[in-house]
Amino acid sequence: MHPFTKRFHESVSALGEEKLLAAIRHWLGTVSPRAPFGIGDDCAVLPAARGRQLLTVDPVIYPRHFNDSVPPRAVGAKLLKRNLSDLAAMGGRPTAAVVALTLDARVSRKWLEQFYRGLAASARRYGVAIVGGDVAEADGVVAASLTLLGKAQGRRILTRTGARVGDWIYVTGVLGGSLRSGHHHDFAPRLAEGAWLAGRPEVRAMMDVSDGLAKDLHALTPRGAEPALAATDIPRRARATVANALADGEDYELVFALAAPADRVAFARAWRRTFPRLRLSCIGRFVRADRLPGGALRLKDYRGYEHLR
Amino acid sequence: MHPFTKRFHESVSALGEEKLLAAIRHWLGTVSPRAPFGIGDDCAVLPAARGRQLLTVDPVIYPRHFNDSVPPRAVGAKLLKRNLSDLAAMGGRPTAAVVALTLDARVSRKWLEQFYRGLAASARRYGVAIVGGDVAEADGVVAASLTLLGKAQGRRILTRTGARVGDWIYVTGVLGGSLRSGHHHDFAPRLAEGAWLAGRPEVRAMMDVSDGLAKDLHALTPRGAEPALAATDIPRRARATVANALADGEDYELVFALAAPADRVAFARAWRRTFPRLRLSCIGRFVRADRLPGGALRLKDYRGYEHLR
Repeated sequence: MHPFTKRFHESVSALGEEKLLAAIRHWLGTVSPRAPFGIGDDCAVLPAARGRQLLTVDPVIYPRHFNDSVPPRAVGAKLLKRNLSDLAAMGGRPTAAVVALTLDARVSRKWLEQFYRGLAASARRYGVAIVGGDVAEADGVVAASLTLLGKAQGRRILTRTGARVGDWIYVTGVLGGSLRSGHHHDFAPRLAEGAWLAGRPEVRAMMDVSDGLAKDLHALTPRGAEPALAATDIPRRARATVANALADGEDYELVFALAAPADRVAFARAWRRTFPRLRLSCIGRFVRADRLPGGALRLKDYRGYEHLR
Repeated sequence: MHPFTKRFHESVSALGEEKLLAAIRHWLGTVSPRAPFGIGDDCAVLPAARGRQLLTVDPVIYPRHFNDSVPPRAVGAKLLKRNLSDLAAMGGRPTAAVVALTLDARVSRKWLEQFYRGLAASARRYGVAIVGGDVAEADGVVAASLTLLGKAQGRRILTRTGARVGDWIYVTGVLGGSLRSGHHHDFAPRLAEGAWLAGRPEVRAMMDVSDGLAKDLHALTPRGAEPALAATDIPRRARATVANALADGEDYELVFALAAPADRVAFARAWRRTFPRLRLSCIGRFVRADRLPGGALRLKDYRGYEHLR
């Protein structure tokens, strides 16, 4: 569905600001608490937070993160789920979110309604309160940026730092072909998996795969080391090549480092018991940079998704 | 300064994503803590929050909130200060912020550096940690959205709700002519004033004036009431008309309701002792809608700033 309309009476501009804000609250429904705990005051009021908190922000922008072929409900859901994936990567669970919307005045009311209904459905499903936001106008733009607040599910927050030379590299699910398959909007953020992994002491570092494994894995790699991956071990989506799996991006899977001395058989068994339907693959290990085996993938040849190029 | 450059080597695109992110961290300097407490992991990690928290989001978008005549340092400062003004309106003080940036690839590196240095200087001044962000690309766009987290300075969070018929209406500073005078970026958010007012039990409700008093005051008005204001009582910036003061917007002052039975002389004295240099004006009171005096301003005739029209 195309976000713009040529008919003025179908546009958000025809509604005017006050009615638009009322409509947004209506579309969000129960996931949007009443002010001062939600939309409608200068700030939203949130309860005290006992443990450490997590904060992340990610946008969806037309036509970069969605195009006319993506249903607006899926766009709204994607906006939230991209952020949930970041939270999952640290073992967190979500609490509240705010949305900053930037719209051309010709955006259709129908498109926007579906966008918010999709966001609301996804927020309900994952237990996120949409507590505030802003609507601004800009010519030719359809963009929304969501800031997500969360907290650790267990005692541990898992960061990208901590992997060591010798550690095994694991990835959840399958990679590549995200755009073609629709996975880029039709995915489930790995919240339960991330929390479970953060509770396992043998998992040393974790992140989500969003810009392509070849690019993202760099951030998990210890200083002086290289990831040694074999092409045959990379789990690929149907019809995806190794290059697709390494560089396409928008996989929203988790990649993590398992301590070298860990009992990998027991770990794999525990995973299967907990997540019997989600594939887990050991794709290689971190080795000293000067000891990269001959057959290992040269990740520099697969650039991954680079912004601003 | 114009945000775009025609010379590729002066553009953010010439830097590429990785170097751009490193440059942003450098420009932010000490206001940007190291990951996992700041930029560089999937989420930022924040300490536990004992009291209730406040959350708000506001953008700056070219050419709506700034144009080529506004120095980029002032744009960065304005982005933070707009949000600080929302926090001030509830009596809060800031803790941390994240910034979502949307840029055309032709934005000049120099412009962006000044923008971030202005943001950093302002963050340092008001004690805000910039803990995370996102950079995305979109044709023709120069926009940034900041989400600000804060907490109450005292025990009380002051909302927009609570004014009663008979309450007096006060406003800080002077209104109108914000764009012409440069006040729209060269202002000080009323954080100390907001906190002080939230600590005064005779103040019943408060908000900031950002879309023009005529429009904003509606949200403070009790059901069944109207604000009865006299034109001569409205504090105006030099060269601003009453219409300017009511409708221009971007004043970033505080408007609040003082309980009808309060000792107004003692209140004004306490204000002057605490904030000797900031004007405080009583501009009228809330009356029953059917008892609006003949000489009162008809606020509906001054629309204020309406978005999406």
